[in-house]
Amino acid sequence: MSQFGYKGKGLEFLTSNKIEIGNQVKIHADLIYSGVIMPRYEHSDDHHIVLKLKSGYNIGLELDKIKKIELETTSAIKKEVIRRSSQPNPKLPKILLLSTGGTIASRIDYRTGAVTPALTAAELNASVPELSIIANIDTEVLFSEYSENLLPEHWIKIAEKLDSYSTSEYDGIIVAHGTDTMQYTASALAFSLAGFPKPVALVGSQRSSDRPSSDAALNLIAATRFLIEIHSPGIFVVMHNNSSDDEIACNWATRVRKNHTSRRDAFKTIGGPPAYIVKANSIEKDKMFDIPKREYVPKIKFDSRVLLIKYYPGLDSKVIDYATDSGYRGIIIEGTGLGHVGKTMYAAIEKAKKNGVFIGMTSQCIDGMVRMTVYDSGRDLLNLGVIPLGNMIPETALVKTMWALANSKNSDEMTKLMKESIALEFSD
Amino acid sequence: MSQFGYKGKGLEFLTSNKIEIGNQVKIHADLIYSGVIMPRYEHSDDHHIVLKLKSGYNIGLELDKIKKIELETTSAIKKEVIRRSSQPNPKLPKILLLSTGGTIASRIDYRTGAVTPALTAAELNASVPELSIIANIDTEVLFSEYSENLLPEHWIKIAEKLDSYSTSEYDGIIVAHGTDTMQYTASALAFSLAGFPKPVALVGSQRSSDRPSSDAALNLIAATRFLIEIHSPGIFVVMHNNSSDDEIACNWATRVRKNHTSRRDAFKTIGGPPAYIVKANSIEKDKMFDIPKREYVPKIKFDSRVLLIKYYPGLDSKVIDYATDSGYRGIIIEGTGLGHVGKTMYAAIEKAKKNGVFIGMTSQCIDGMVRMTVYDSGRDLLNLGVIPLGNMIPETALVKTMWALANSKNSDEMTKLMKESIALEFSD
Repeated sequence: MSQFGYKGKGLEFLTSNKIEIGNQVKIHADLIYSGVIMPRYEHSDDHHIVLKLKSGYNIGLELDKIKKIELETTSAIKKEVIRRSSQPNPKLPKILLLSTGGTIASRIDYRTGAVTPALTAAELNASVPELSIIANIDTEVLFSEYSENLLPEHWIKIAEKLDSYSTSEYDGIIVAHGTDTMQYTASALAFSLAGFPKPVALVGSQRSSDRPSSDAALNLIAATRFLIEIHSPGIFVVMHNNSSDDEIACNWATRVRKNHTSRRDAFKTIGGPPAYIVKANSIEKDKMFDIPKREYVPKIKFDSRVLLIKYYPGLDSKVIDYATDSGYRGIIIEGTGLGHVGKTMYAAIEKAKKNGVFIGMTSQCIDGMVRMTVYDSGRDLLNLGVIPLGNMIPETALVKTMWALANSKNSDEMTKLMKESIALEFSD
Repeated sequence: MSQFGYKGKGLEFLTSNKIEIGNQVKIHADLIYSGVIMPRYEHSDDHHIVLKLKSGYNIGLELDKIKKIELETTSAIKKEVIRRSSQPNPKLPKILLLSTGGTIASRIDYRTGAVTPALTAAELNASVPELSIIANIDTEVLFSEYSENLLPEHWIKIAEKLDSYSTSEYDGIIVAHGTDTMQYTASALAFSLAGFPKPVALVGSQRSSDRPSSDAALNLIAATRFLIEIHSPGIFVVMHNNSSDDEIACNWATRVRKNHTSRRDAFKTIGGPPAYIVKANSIEKDKMFDIPKREYVPKIKFDSRVLLIKYYPGLDSKVIDYATDSGYRGIIIEGTGLGHVGKTMYAAIEKAKKNGVFIGMTSQCIDGMVRMTVYDSGRDLLNLGVIPLGNMIPETALVKTMWALANSKNSDEMTKLMKESIALEFSD
């Protein structure tokens, strides 16, 4: 047992109090905190020590505010957790943890309150010692980016990496990912790796891993259990299902959306329940959810010349002309209601279609079906060649269009791909 | 009592069976239907008669399929309803019903199944005779358009019309409106008529008024009760609160969103409950809802040179350059998560700001606060001059930007307006 990561005053404090990493302690500060001393990571300051509370959350405590630290009896289970985390058990299932960055791989700087994406996959794994009880986790860093900076070229790197492990010995793969664009990456993987033979869980957190109330540990543990116990091939997004810690949702990649800026249960399956819910002692499958069966033929290409346009009163149709004239190959419209835009858009849509631009219709309502045969407005747009996209959510439709454009020979084949259910992007 | 609207075979059928408008009848067709014979409107065919069922819904029955029609005893209450609907009662509150079109003012053509926006406000009123029990309704047609065709110039016409009634004898005003862009119009009225001294209810329906399962009648009745019983000045959107018929929600204009393409309870207040809920025997106010108090100074102007852009991986920043170069004065970004865009957007945002374009940040999550001080990405964007818009929903932020640009002398004053709560567009 080392004093890993601690230096200066922090190391001095622990040494003088004869406290080691992994010790169960009681710390008297503004409140009395009970928990396990956690390792610190490189670049950390020397004014804080990190405590894992019983709730599973980590908290940073400022040395100057600590009045007293008491060593408590380290429980047998905790000792076992700590022992296993340093010694792989060959009998356990093997899981690969790929890190792309994001809050889940971030730490907070307790001096400034700022969050930076600096945790390696190994550190992330080490910060959740419970994982080593249920699986041997290998780790690999793909990149360290907040997900708002990920582009289709990053989707390709993640997909190619996953493809390279398609026949590996891993029971499943976790992709640690920022939550901001996680649904876009999930859809990109679902289309480009349709039929992937292993279960893949994209896991993020809304609060950084070394922060009190972080959801990282529980999401990672639930994802690992889901991969090992269910063996459901395909791409899932695994995040909190509600605001307490008793349910983690496994959402199917193409049907999930980030619906809240900060709640831990921000991710919701649109138009239905999540595919699976991980509970304390069970993993429950939604009875309506069917794993799509498909031969695995990876098609890892995207054409990002697609514009997403939300229609609104006052939208100038010249934006559509701009897309046509600038060489865009697809436009996804977030229409109103059942899939409408105002008449002022018709001429520009007609011109775009004449220039071979694919135009797909989704709804800004987000939930519910696009139905373009009910009203004149919808029928007019169908006559102009706009393709209704059922209840595909707009962000999924955007990614699918990028994918279908890059993986079809002509516009007929592309339109056919768009109407076909490739990865459960249409639900009933 | 006339045979209003019936002609040809329909009129012949009613006459030969000695049935009049308003009679309670039992009709034997594919099923046995019990209800009240309703008037038909101009342009109707002569193959159907319209029956109002006990549920409040209207149904069109094909003459050829009717096996038998029986006159039932007309109840005293029903007689009274019919009497009052043709004779205004001066003791009742006065309500103005303005019609702008939309499904609520539409009828279905029973031959083709197509829906057209052809009902006048008077016909709409006549189709819900229950209204005459609780209020004297005057009607006026502003236009007959599906709301996807309404533009900021229509917002101005509606606002000016409402303003002209600001000191009238009406207890409240109903605006019948298509649901597709109802939330945009509601926000436009809330900003341009901030402090309006009378209650205004925008009312729509997801199924046309003469259709079985139409929500038009119940929404209109609830809106009328709300206007009369609560007297809460301001702009509300009054629509079903759930999928049954026992709760109608009165949503505050700037906080409401159409979240489903077809459900009758598609409209939801974002981030909290509706301001009021109309139940069978009561109207309940949410304890957190406070009516904003403001001196009424109408500012009925909008500048539609505002572009709404949803950020996504692969978005080409040239779209922002296009807006800058084309003379747009504002851009509302639907960023990811807490209010982020990828770094590839920064240069275009900087150029837009240098050219005096207002850039406001909302979140595509729709629910939750934009917080741009948590991550580097957010701080970078703040440094570039992007204005965080709290938890204003993107569509409301778009309308507010159009309004603030047209009602401020310079960009400082405009930015100040954007940060100020004018019409409860920020909620806690």
